[in-house]
Amino acid sequence: MSPITPPAGSKSFVVGVDVGGTKIAAGVVDANGQVYGRVKIPTDTSQPERTLQSIIIAITATLREAEVNPSHVSAVGLGIPGKVDPVRGISLLAVNLGWHDIPVKQRLEEALDLPCWLENDVSVAALGESLYGAGRGLENFLYLSLGTGVAARMILAGQLYRGSNGLAGEIGHAIVVPDGPQCLCGARGCLEALISGPALVKQAQEEIRAGKRTILKETWLHEPQPLAEQIFAAALQGDDVAQQLLTGAGKRLANTIYLLAMTFDPQAVVLGGGLARADGPFFATVCSEVVRKLEQSPIFREIFSPKSLLLSDLKLDAGILGAASLARTRLKNPKRGYNKGVLSRG
Amino acid sequence: MSPITPPAGSKSFVVGVDVGGTKIAAGVVDANGQVYGRVKIPTDTSQPERTLQSIIIAITATLREAEVNPSHVSAVGLGIPGKVDPVRGISLLAVNLGWHDIPVKQRLEEALDLPCWLENDVSVAALGESLYGAGRGLENFLYLSLGTGVAARMILAGQLYRGSNGLAGEIGHAIVVPDGPQCLCGARGCLEALISGPALVKQAQEEIRAGKRTILKETWLHEPQPLAEQIFAAALQGDDVAQQLLTGAGKRLANTIYLLAMTFDPQAVVLGGGLARADGPFFATVCSEVVRKLEQSPIFREIFSPKSLLLSDLKLDAGILGAASLARTRLKNPKRGYNKGVLSRG
Repeated sequence: MSPITPPAGSKSFVVGVDVGGTKIAAGVVDANGQVYGRVKIPTDTSQPERTLQSIIIAITATLREAEVNPSHVSAVGLGIPGKVDPVRGISLLAVNLGWHDIPVKQRLEEALDLPCWLENDVSVAALGESLYGAGRGLENFLYLSLGTGVAARMILAGQLYRGSNGLAGEIGHAIVVPDGPQCLCGARGCLEALISGPALVKQAQEEIRAGKRTILKETWLHEPQPLAEQIFAAALQGDDVAQQLLTGAGKRLANTIYLLAMTFDPQAVVLGGGLARADGPFFATVCSEVVRKLEQSPIFREIFSPKSLLLSDLKLDAGILGAASLARTRLKNPKRGYNKGVLSRG
Repeated sequence: MSPITPPAGSKSFVVGVDVGGTKIAAGVVDANGQVYGRVKIPTDTSQPERTLQSIIIAITATLREAEVNPSHVSAVGLGIPGKVDPVRGISLLAVNLGWHDIPVKQRLEEALDLPCWLENDVSVAALGESLYGAGRGLENFLYLSLGTGVAARMILAGQLYRGSNGLAGEIGHAIVVPDGPQCLCGARGCLEALISGPALVKQAQEEIRAGKRTILKETWLHEPQPLAEQIFAAALQGDDVAQQLLTGAGKRLANTIYLLAMTFDPQAVVLGGGLARADGPFFATVCSEVVRKLEQSPIFREIFSPKSLLLSDLKLDAGILGAASLARTRLKNPKRGYNKGVLSRG
């Protein structure tokens, strides 16, 4: 197969990279949002230097896989977990990567000889959904990421709203149960400590220890790292403990969606991340609780309807596509919008 | 006194009007935000036609008081309670005016022979604060109006964010106590049904009926319309019932401020409206509860500090100034931003 070639003289490809605590996904993206040569490799988090190497390996691998002529690639965009300084290109704090003040942009640009830009991973996924996914064509919507972490991102007036410190939408760390379970952020009873993947696993393990009957006991007997996905599978098999946990989490999430929708009056709420799936009691509970709120509140009915609740239709590609679009936008204007607390979509 | 005259050939005055359920405030505003000839007249809400007449009376009265040459006035801006269609200039629903689908813009333009624009009254007050008040110079802040109603408005990236249906920030109708007290919106347990002025009066009256000792019993004995302001006065005199009510309301408000700040990552939260005052247990409780949340949550500490909580420094003029700036902006561009769910500040 010969390399994919854009029109002569143009540099119309960018690389989008979604850096996670366990895996790095990368792809080469053309100007229409087509992804080529997707790769997914494990993240080496043993040392910051090695994590940077993993990213470089992912980028070179996707360029090879996509068979794109490197001279046709103009930039690299990256979604990085945690707090990011997007103008200086620094990862300020990424707990699950073990990063603190890592000059990612500078290091990658030296290694790759391509301009690189970074943003928070959830922000980048929201951008991806807004350009190519469930939020396509919407001026105002919320993207809710449910997985290892819980966070919202807001596309308002066609731009990603970042807030004054880049922390807008960090509602996973809103305390919803005073003196509730310990959260990684240092507080207790944060939403993330109640409904994230790791929080659900912890709750299921407590049920097992308390002697409750559940097939998860067998599933996790020899499992070094139990996964929230396995709770979803157990619930679909009719497991009581799994169903109750997911129903409880669904109720909490529905309340969060309700409060966010009443606050933002958005055109839609898009659920993304590993736990956003249509099957099983979790999403069913979210939907039925939202319907219950609609019945109770006339003003909520003016704002929202069951049709306003959407599931991501990009899944893993949301991060790659959003990171790629970030790179395209920043190529044109490296700082646009950041002084006002927003990130322009295009 | 001779009429105030702007530089020859310019039409540099606009009229700002703040229409309330009991009073209409109006003023003539120059290009620097100086207010002349403030007037305040009672609102006649006996019929929609008479309410429109009250507005016209207020506008003619302020023009007379300010002694401005009418030929130097270029437009009228109005803040109207409830839901407004700002592009067509229609009051869609204003419960306390008894208005439903009133073509305010058209009717006033016929009567005054001046271009008129309207917006929701809280939005207009937020604009006023953002241009001339506590939010001056801030790109991102929240304005919280506390009075007969409870609502938030968001200035984000220097613009007022309206939402998809113009209902962004209507958090007064977020249900915070399931099956709680009846709210005017039709739902039960809304924030507004718990901490608004009328809600506080109702709670105090229930305490009186339950036989609690309070000076409010005397105060309200021959009062046809008891006021929340009197609860504030009683609390300052050491009245237990008044203090407990305001402490309870302060706690609820602090929680709302906390959740909004965690969501928006704003530079400040500005409290306005009749109940936003620094004296007594209400604001003291809000402040101490915010400090408690700051102690509990490291991420809240990155976003907020006690200095981020501000009281309006415009009071009544916020509405007049915001309405005037609305008129100026719309004169230049009648529809700018509305298609995206925002209202440009200037």
